[in-house]
Amino acid sequence: MSHYHAVKLVRRPEKALDASLFEKVSLPIPEPAEGQLLVRQSHMSLDPAMIGWMSADTESYIPPVALGEVMRSSGVGEVVASRHPDFAVGERVMGMFGWTQYALSSGAGITKIDAALPAEMVLSVLALPGLTATQGLLRLGKPKAGETLVVTGAAGSVGSLVGQLAKAEGLRVIGVVGSEDKAQWVVDTLGFDGAINYKTDDLAAKLAELTPNGVDLFFENTGGPIQQHIFGRMNAHGRIIVCGLIADYLSDTPAPGPSWLNIIKKRLTIQGFTMPDHWHEIPELIATLLPYVQSGKLQYRAHVLEGLDAAMEGLPLLVNGGNQGKLMVAL
Amino acid sequence: MSHYHAVKLVRRPEKALDASLFEKVSLPIPEPAEGQLLVRQSHMSLDPAMIGWMSADTESYIPPVALGEVMRSSGVGEVVASRHPDFAVGERVMGMFGWTQYALSSGAGITKIDAALPAEMVLSVLALPGLTATQGLLRLGKPKAGETLVVTGAAGSVGSLVGQLAKAEGLRVIGVVGSEDKAQWVVDTLGFDGAINYKTDDLAAKLAELTPNGVDLFFENTGGPIQQHIFGRMNAHGRIIVCGLIADYLSDTPAPGPSWLNIIKKRLTIQGFTMPDHWHEIPELIATLLPYVQSGKLQYRAHVLEGLDAAMEGLPLLVNGGNQGKLMVAL
Repeated sequence: MSHYHAVKLVRRPEKALDASLFEKVSLPIPEPAEGQLLVRQSHMSLDPAMIGWMSADTESYIPPVALGEVMRSSGVGEVVASRHPDFAVGERVMGMFGWTQYALSSGAGITKIDAALPAEMVLSVLALPGLTATQGLLRLGKPKAGETLVVTGAAGSVGSLVGQLAKAEGLRVIGVVGSEDKAQWVVDTLGFDGAINYKTDDLAAKLAELTPNGVDLFFENTGGPIQQHIFGRMNAHGRIIVCGLIADYLSDTPAPGPSWLNIIKKRLTIQGFTMPDHWHEIPELIATLLPYVQSGKLQYRAHVLEGLDAAMEGLPLLVNGGNQGKLMVAL
Repeated sequence: MSHYHAVKLVRRPEKALDASLFEKVSLPIPEPAEGQLLVRQSHMSLDPAMIGWMSADTESYIPPVALGEVMRSSGVGEVVASRHPDFAVGERVMGMFGWTQYALSSGAGITKIDAALPAEMVLSVLALPGLTATQGLLRLGKPKAGETLVVTGAAGSVGSLVGQLAKAEGLRVIGVVGSEDKAQWVVDTLGFDGAINYKTDDLAAKLAELTPNGVDLFFENTGGPIQQHIFGRMNAHGRIIVCGLIADYLSDTPAPGPSWLNIIKKRLTIQGFTMPDHWHEIPELIATLLPYVQSGKLQYRAHVLEGLDAAMEGLPLLVNGGNQGKLMVAL
């Protein structure tokens, strides 16, 4: 009987995200029971939401990963054995397989994916990042041509797609990033109208210069001091979509939000969302997103790490912004 | 030619709201030109929104009252002369007539009101407070039977109607008030399920005791420290309607809002609104509200001051909570 590797969460993160939180185990490759399929994962995705899943905070929108459980993540793989009527050996599937080389599944929550698409593109665009951008920007944000969008974490997996979808819809798009390289990428390659480096720019001055007509849509992926500045430039009837607050997830004292006065003065709507509420809508979300993908309008940049061990080492990049594009692990 | 009195705003408020901000003038009673009507006002309304209208803050949702202009307010009165095809002498009308005994009008923004209804009831229920509660609670908040609502400023003109409309819809309703008298009134007379005295109660403990199933709807009229506590008890998919922040309007340093983490964790929607955006919907709002009025479900308490001069003296009550019910001036 041959074996495979998986990585379990064994400790809750406090400050540092390092290998001490995990334990790598070797397990016998199982046989699917009636109604099950076995997937060999080729690529697994590393997403900022995982930081939340690792913490024991019971207030979160999804139960934390239990200690001793295989770390949760999404990924793509190939069906290598099946006793499930809907899945055949050789098919490409996407699902929440976790940090593992092999996974048994009942088929629930699994989506078939055209095997011709590059795995990097599937995880960068059609998987969680693209579905998140579609739900948050297109469905909740209701962007209108001529409006101005500011997106934080703009070079990130979600932010880069949010900005590109907004450009496709005819908006002025300003991205907030953490390096000159990322600033250049979102402007030169993705076609954003401007970028703010939150680490080096004078935030108020640069934001005012780049949003001469104020801000109609604010897509928040990060938190941090830029939040107050963008909030202060919101136009009447502005919409704020709160998708991520990576700066606050591991903080003992999350930053206070802005005064609510502007919510009245500008009649703002602030809306938080998370994708687990929308799993059942994935087919519609994919249908909404697919035309943008097929038109070739959506660029992506994949940051591919190699091998299961690299996942543990790659996690901190999600917090310190060290990744260059959508972070994933090739197995 | 006989004369009437009006009161003009001549100074912007800084800290105190007193008579030094105003000037009373005597003016000749005008004749309506073609297309105009002349209204003799019987009752004018004092509303918290007026504090905002008096300040020069250009970010507000409605232009400030200009210095030297008659102070803005809504009221009811009788048509005493008309050269307008739609209005006849003797009809009862409601509109933004200002602090004045007589007002000329083009008819724009004026609503006819059944002359059989008591003026106190018109200004307490059918005018701004009732329309605000209808728009904010029923349209934006989408209350569902069995949910829990917390409303701040619960004994106020808007808050008392919000709570009663929510009770009529089958919600558990907790009101935040600033005195024992008000606490007793909202529970005993209005039928709320509980009240919190923000001046004397242990906010966290009392709120937890009164909202055992958390909070689904938060109707915010006041701001202040209770905001953070209610925000912390919001349930998944909770809705927060921001209608007023009286504690912050005159503050140099408005209180920061709560951290946005809960907006994601609980997938909250926070929505600010002001009635000037909805003037054109007043007929529909009245139609929505009228069945509740006619069913006798909506109690009100009018705090009636006498005479134009009393308006200047009554204004501080809106800030310090000294009014006992909907504040208005009988002329």
